[in-house]
Amino acid sequence: MSTIAQLGVAVIGIGKMGADHVRRIEEVISGARVAAVADPDRDRAAAAAARIEGCTVHTDPVAAMAAPGVGAVLIASPGPAHEAALLAALERDLPVLCEKPLTPDAEAALRVLAAERKLGRRRIQVGFMRRYDAEYIQLARLLADGDLGRPLMLHCRHRNLSVHPYFTNEMLINDSVSHEFDAARWLLGEEITAVRVYRPTPASVTDTGLSDPQFVVFETDGGVVVDVEIFVNSGFGYQVQAEAVCAHGTARIGEAHGLLTNTAGRWGGAIAPDFITRFADAYDREVQDWVDAARRDEVTGPGVWDGYAAVAACAAGIEAQRTGRRVPVEMIERPAFYGR
Amino acid sequence: MSTIAQLGVAVIGIGKMGADHVRRIEEVISGARVAAVADPDRDRAAAAAARIEGCTVHTDPVAAMAAPGVGAVLIASPGPAHEAALLAALERDLPVLCEKPLTPDAEAALRVLAAERKLGRRRIQVGFMRRYDAEYIQLARLLADGDLGRPLMLHCRHRNLSVHPYFTNEMLINDSVSHEFDAARWLLGEEITAVRVYRPTPASVTDTGLSDPQFVVFETDGGVVVDVEIFVNSGFGYQVQAEAVCAHGTARIGEAHGLLTNTAGRWGGAIAPDFITRFADAYDREVQDWVDAARRDEVTGPGVWDGYAAVAACAAGIEAQRTGRRVPVEMIERPAFYGR
Amino acid sequence: MSTIAQLGVAVIGIGKMGADHVRRIEEVISGARVAAVADPDRDRAAAAAARIEGCTVHTDPVAAMAAPGVGAVLIASPGPAHEAALLAALERDLPVLCEKPLTPDAEAALRVLAAERKLGRRRIQVGFMRRYDAEYIQLARLLADGDLGRPLMLHCRHRNLSVHPYFTNEMLINDSVSHEFDAARWLLGEEITAVRVYRPTPASVTDTGLSDPQFVVFETDGGVVVDVEIFVNSGFGYQVQAEAVCAHGTARIGEAHGLLTNTAGRWGGAIAPDFITRFADAYDREVQDWVDAARRDEVTGPGVWDGYAAVAACAAGIEAQRTGRRVPVEMIERPAFYGR
Amino acid sequence: MSTIAQLGVAVIGIGKMGADHVRRIEEVISGARVAAVADPDRDRAAAAAARIEGCTVHTDPVAAMAAPGVGAVLIASPGPAHEAALLAALERDLPVLCEKPLTPDAEAALRVLAAERKLGRRRIQVGFMRRYDAEYIQLARLLADGDLGRPLMLHCRHRNLSVHPYFTNEMLINDSVSHEFDAARWLLGEEITAVRVYRPTPASVTDTGLSDPQFVVFETDGGVVVDVEIFVNSGFGYQVQAEAVCAHGTARIGEAHGLLTNTAGRWGGAIAPDFITRFADAYDREVQDWVDAARRDEVTGPGVWDGYAAVAACAAGIEAQRTGRRVPVEMIERPAFYGR
Repeated sequence: MSTIAQLGVAVIGIGKMGADHVRRIEEVISGARVAAVADPDRDRAAAAAARIEGCTVHTDPVAAMAAPGVGAVLIASPGPAHEAALLAALERDLPVLCEKPLTPDAEAALRVLAAERKLGRRRIQVGFMRRYDAEYIQLARLLADGDLGRPLMLHCRHRNLSVHPYFTNEMLINDSVSHEFDAARWLLGEEITAVRVYRPTPASVTDTGLSDPQFVVFETDGGVVVDVEIFVNSGFGYQVQAEAVCAHGTARIGEAHGLLTNTAGRWGGAIAPDFITRFADAYDREVQDWVDAARRDEVTGPGVWDGYAAVAACAAGIEAQRTGRRVPVEMIERPAFYGR
Repeated sequence: MSTIAQLGVAVIGIGKMGADHVRRIEEVISGARVAAVADPDRDRAAAAAARIEGCTVHTDPVAAMAAPGVGAVLIASPGPAHEAALLAALERDLPVLCEKPLTPDAEAALRVLAAERKLGRRRIQVGFMRRYDAEYIQLARLLADGDLGRPLMLHCRHRNLSVHPYFTNEMLINDSVSHEFDAARWLLGEEITAVRVYRPTPASVTDTGLSDPQFVVFETDGGVVVDVEIFVNSGFGYQVQAEAVCAHGTARIGEAHGLLTNTAGRWGGAIAPDFITRFADAYDREVQDWVDAARRDEVTGPGVWDGYAAVAACAAGIEAQRTGRRVPVEMIERPAFYGR
Repeated sequence: MSTIAQLGVAVIGIGKMGADHVRRIEEVISGARVAAVADPDRDRAAAAAARIEGCTVHTDPVAAMAAPGVGAVLIASPGPAHEAALLAALERDLPVLCEKPLTPDAEAALRVLAAERKLGRRRIQVGFMRRYDAEYIQLARLLADGDLGRPLMLHCRHRNLSVHPYFTNEMLINDSVSHEFDAARWLLGEEITAVRVYRPTPASVTDTGLSDPQFVVFETDGGVVVDVEIFVNSGFGYQVQAEAVCAHGTARIGEAHGLLTNTAGRWGGAIAPDFITRFADAYDREVQDWVDAARRDEVTGPGVWDGYAAVAACAAGIEAQRTGRRVPVEMIERPAFYGR
Repeated sequence: MSTIAQLGVAVIGIGKMGADHVRRIEEVISGARVAAVADPDRDRAAAAAARIEGCTVHTDPVAAMAAPGVGAVLIASPGPAHEAALLAALERDLPVLCEKPLTPDAEAALRVLAAERKLGRRRIQVGFMRRYDAEYIQLARLLADGDLGRPLMLHCRHRNLSVHPYFTNEMLINDSVSHEFDAARWLLGEEITAVRVYRPTPASVTDTGLSDPQFVVFETDGGVVVDVEIFVNSGFGYQVQAEAVCAHGTARIGEAHGLLTNTAGRWGGAIAPDFITRFADAYDREVQDWVDAARRDEVTGPGVWDGYAAVAACAAGIEAQRTGRRVPVEMIERPAFYGR
């Protein structure tokens, strides 16, 4: 492996997440460099590129992909811009890491899926970074080993300290529970078939009508029942927990740990303030993994099918949330191209 | 308090539970003695009374209640025998501790309720012993204090090592989930309004058709959503956990604790084998509390209304289990006599 | 077992501890009643006896022992009064439960020991209540089972929220570390051979010259090294922990447990405020056990030899504390009468 | 930051640790590349360099330091080779990351110290990687914040699954406890003044005479008492724990965490098998930090003074281990050049 063979990455979208990925590629992970950046706000893009030698600045994503030295694309723009950028990257046969959601709706996801199938090989990885979290990986291995027997239920907790005031009921499904949709699919190796949403008396109702917390129960084609507490304005911190109940035992991740203190009548530890703190290592691992695969001309992480499946489950989730009913998840049959 | 003023108890039903209560009254708690025992199997009753001075032996519960020195009744006979024994005790104006269920169905519970109201004072306590468990009491106090804000959700786990082969789907609701029905009502101070039961692919299906585990979600008139994992043949031990999710924080009980070991690549502790081990102190505290109140001529624990509410929720639970639907709980309006 | 055969106890010394034992015998445990109380302050004794039928009031311990119905003696008077009371009880051949310390010094302990040997059977139990704590019992069983191999080290933590202002360096050994002296002897089945005391820079020095915390290291005749952190004005709560390090693993007790909360960036639980809270069940179990044995005319708990061993280790501990040196523990050879 | 400005590192010593650092620099961290490798075994060096473009291979450490593109030196050769390599690197004014121990004895450490002082700026960082562990960093911050008050004691546990058969009593101090010597100095900001070693009856005695476990107590110039259980053939896994006891509370790190399972009567988790697993992130962070500083022409991590202090404490520790006595640590006065 040589320092000359570093992968040149075009980063599309230089918001909070995109800027963090620029920093990650330049300062944290090995084997890659930022070769081009693109953002509608040229100043923002230029600021991110300022200290990076040879990094070109663009407002047009396609121009960034065509810049000298670009061998891969990281898409961190808002969801509605994803489809065009993904299709452009596929045309250039470039490996892509696309932040979730793949696209805002299932139809667009299917168009991306069709384009990738036409290209004939997997080029797109979706940013489901929990698959790179050390504890989730431990849990996945344990389930794969089968020592605890077949999984039967999955109990999930997803709590945020708080969210911005314009957060909506739909975002609660699309931005938050979508992580559990993907994590469940990945941990269980099964597809989601139906979703129901319970709305307890809310702790708070915001101006957008957000009813918080909610309790989501969904089922898989393997008969597993998954429940998710989603509580986005919990006020006490960021917690992500999951307990798999299997035929011969259970396994749980996400308990608070690390530093324990005894003070003034209390023992315990701190709760992480946000997902960036909690999943910092997972983000690093995700991007490193994608870079390593891209340099071997491969894509190995969660792909278009996973992105599509999450979008389809979210659509059912929002319908379930609205109606209070059990809503089946509608998906096309899985193409052999995306064979398990 | 004098040793002469000890409360004489008639114990009705000398099965496993009744015999244990005889031992408890004689050897563990203070202020009471067993004055009479009754069981259809006279030998079994006689064996329990053998070493107790002055304890009379009966096959007829009513005769036991009429025996010399009897000032209170503990009913540990099978559920179908409860109504007659309860009505007989009420006729004699004796304080009663009745093992759960109060009665097998809601109609019988309402007849007992009517009899107690006619008598004009509370004489019956139902054996919901979780209300006497140290951890449950801590949780109840925390919720009552209100420091964590209003409760919104309650996540419950109820796991047994195993149950006998003739355990049925109905018993899973009536014998197991009924504890969570009462615990939720007590912790929240709210009534249950509807029940739904999910049946994941079972770990095992027994000859009786028992599908295990199941996942029960119920709602309260205060808008709290309660979920219960019930797993009666878990194979790994007895665990009862509860986490209350409130507006400003959460609180959890039932984590394993006690002795921690490091051995051969593993750290951790033991899981209790059964409820008698886990709730030993709760049983002692329950009976002591009932005796103390009876000697003051009072009944202070969970009463007929609580027994009726659990029976009504169980009926809805079994219907929900059978149909897969959300089933409303039907109850009479709460009489002022049983005012909160 | 009959209510007539209840054991009549004379309680000697009605301070905080004695009054609590009166309450325990009357209200908590079964099989015993308080037949007589004695205290130099007659009013205090009379107040404790007020509601107890047939309980006589005395200022002279010996008169209390001679009162009608007395079949056992519980000594809760200050240490210097123990020897006389113990000898008087032995003369009457009464079973005794004597709060620790057995006596203030080793010489007095040896005189009591001689008297009991002369009597020819064990009559005295010393109040080392940790032997009755559920977690200590779990640890003792584990060590006895031998699954973890031979014990090699024992790490102990003993922390109080605070102690009264007249607490001294000597009391830190005699009143606090003496518990670890006995617990180690009991858990290991070995005698203590030498003691050393480290004094870190103190968190506080009181008017009595108390240097707090201190760190005590002692050795046993089986070659086990035991360390004790003793921190009596910790300011954060009462904690007693012990970890046995064995050839094939370790085992630890005393971790905080029970109710866990998530609030405002912190997860964790409460720390008990004092030993009465932490060891409430142990005290109940201890007295119940002693009563049960006494009614069988036996003494089964920690005896005079254990009381003497703790007093001897304390003497060495205080010398070690004063000199900063390793001080051997001087003891007579263990009489066969007190054979293990 | 540019990809051209990558730091070229000469790695001296390509044993297990050196080879791992080569991998880390090339594949894990950013901003550096391996420009030269040196090992007495040329084949081993060549194998490590094989896939690295432009990396030269040497048997002479000094030749490697003089190779084209070398701007920094990482020393991973055996301890006796450190002094010569360090002095050579200082002559070339190259920033150095030197695996511990700095040198095998205090005299050599002082010669290195003198050379660095003569050079006039800090060039050497010593590989105390615990300072880069996330939990140790949390503990250090907590102590620095002062919320818990002044530290008074530090309880440490250091357990290995097993060590190789030629491990000696001396290595137990030099290779194992030396980590606690440095961690204590770093956490407390104090120097070690005296050491004592207790040897409990060993779990095992190896052919080298290794008595395992041992219990080390040392004192600091700030009056803190530190105890270390060192158990290198524990047989159950790798555990490093530390609890700081402060005036107003305690704080502990190194508890087992991550995946929790319930199986067959037990709950708990796994114990890491070795330090590479436990401290993987710390090693990455350490080397990244050193590279980042070197590129700014600085050395910011633990330096020569820290290496010297650990060597001096180890010398006292070995003497204490041999004699069973309290052995004062002899050190020169801290030069202003290494001002805190």
